[in-house]
Amino acid sequence: MARRHVVAVDIGGTETKAALVTGTSEVVAAQKHARRATPAELEPLLAVIAELVDELRQASEHEIDAVGIVAPGIVDEANGVGVYTTNLPWSQFPFSTVLTERLGVPVTFGHDVRAAGLAECRMGAAKGLRNAVVLPIGTGIAGALLLDGKIFSGDGYAGEIGHVNVGHGVPCACGQIGCVETVASSAAIARRYTARTGTPVNGAAEVARRVKDGEQDAVAVWHEAVDALARGILVLATLLGPEAVVLGGGLALAGDLLVEPLRDRLDGLIAFQRRPELRLAALGDEAGFLGAALLAIDMLEAS
Amino acid sequence: MARRHVVAVDIGGTETKAALVTGTSEVVAAQKHARRATPAELEPLLAVIAELVDELRQASEHEIDAVGIVAPGIVDEANGVGVYTTNLPWSQFPFSTVLTERLGVPVTFGHDVRAAGLAECRMGAAKGLRNAVVLPIGTGIAGALLLDGKIFSGDGYAGEIGHVNVGHGVPCACGQIGCVETVASSAAIARRYTARTGTPVNGAAEVARRVKDGEQDAVAVWHEAVDALARGILVLATLLGPEAVVLGGGLALAGDLLVEPLRDRLDGLIAFQRRPELRLAALGDEAGFLGAALLAIDMLEAS
Repeated sequence: MARRHVVAVDIGGTETKAALVTGTSEVVAAQKHARRATPAELEPLLAVIAELVDELRQASEHEIDAVGIVAPGIVDEANGVGVYTTNLPWSQFPFSTVLTERLGVPVTFGHDVRAAGLAECRMGAAKGLRNAVVLPIGTGIAGALLLDGKIFSGDGYAGEIGHVNVGHGVPCACGQIGCVETVASSAAIARRYTARTGTPVNGAAEVARRVKDGEQDAVAVWHEAVDALARGILVLATLLGPEAVVLGGGLALAGDLLVEPLRDRLDGLIAFQRRPELRLAALGDEAGFLGAALLAIDMLEAS
Repeated sequence: MARRHVVAVDIGGTETKAALVTGTSEVVAAQKHARRATPAELEPLLAVIAELVDELRQASEHEIDAVGIVAPGIVDEANGVGVYTTNLPWSQFPFSTVLTERLGVPVTFGHDVRAAGLAECRMGAAKGLRNAVVLPIGTGIAGALLLDGKIFSGDGYAGEIGHVNVGHGVPCACGQIGCVETVASSAAIARRYTARTGTPVNGAAEVARRVKDGEQDAVAVWHEAVDALARGILVLATLLGPEAVVLGGGLALAGDLLVEPLRDRLDGLIAFQRRPELRLAALGDEAGFLGAALLAIDMLEAS
């Protein structure tokens, strides 16, 4: 298999991060990193992407073969189109076509969560499985669905497990109620702890520390998050029967503090469904980059 | 494409039905039918299958190329194994291997709901779509998931949308609560109408007639069923983003009486998800046979 050299770009709500990535379609590694604030408008964002790519291209000892870009929202991977996002400056924008011309190398455009899931499946915690869900838990919650060995995108609409109603009744910004992520995302855990106690915290990690200290309010908020997550995972088990669910994102840094009560709660809920193994993600923050790079390498291999 | 002649067998909870089916991997038609009561033990069931196949073989003008069998429960299609059922007499039984030897022709063994879904996708209401869910609503509710043009089985565990908790709080025989099928299956609609009124009815079709007549209790039971179904379909839209949901089984015979309020309720619930078109199944009772025959023809084409 050919070794490829690509630039991977991960467009986030606040920051756009890039890395120089080298490897094959089976395993890649990131070397040099660069980042910028994500501009609030499209043309400045395209300029920032071009700058990041140029910077890393110059830093590379090798010719760059391709660029892989990933972003949140509804993404049409087949056509490299950013269809829709809630807080980023595009709608139906053909990233692949526009940036391939602008950068002078082949550019692929994919979905951040599905790309990170692809990386976990090829070289991380889901390696070797054919049916799994990779579930990053951060500001929001969405899943990458590995079905019969391929990441399923549902034309860009698949995997929104964070917006399944699990019955807790709390309204979500999406307009629905009871959404998993309204009580179980990292952001929700921090927000709900502060709402309950009046004490500001530095993210879900601080709530996790307070749970370890046995603080009652923290334990209650954590327990509600675990219950909602377990109910969401049960829905995945009922509809898709994954062999494993891989927990990623910021919340997975809590490790056993998350996995153990989640396993207990799932055991209490599950009936005839195949019981998914709960695993922690292996690639951490890098999964998005590595997945973007794998998408770029897959594109090169296919052409 | 070669025209094939196969016997299709659909093992049901009370009856085992068979038909002579002719066609290609794109379109098939059933000609002669036969049926027997489903025996309560495995060896008599195998004997009944052999009898049905022999009877139809003798009635056929053509040599039989293969046999396609479908059944409910957890089915491992790849290996032709009946893994588990709640009320039929097998567990981990290798139907394909045993019956191929016994019948002297290649035998494939698949899942009834997924096979019926396959038929609707190849030649029925979901023809031409790449992402859809075929949802037969009868004694229970399970879905056949068409994902990127293929029926997804999840190693036999996929599609159990009838057992997703949609919050109505009614206990289900499966051990969970709030399951879609506890209030929305044909059986549930009849049972709940009788429980509410004390009046026995001849299935959900009679409840449907009473809904048309504007009878309040019937309308209330129907409304609860529609609400649970709409919530189940919303979960499918959130996780899989199907282009269409095809409603089948006995309840779909209610036609617009089902589809129109279901569409309204779904419109009221849906947020950012892709809105699936609601369609009625095209193949009716024959879908199971036709799907079993398609599985048999696919096996022949692959070998």
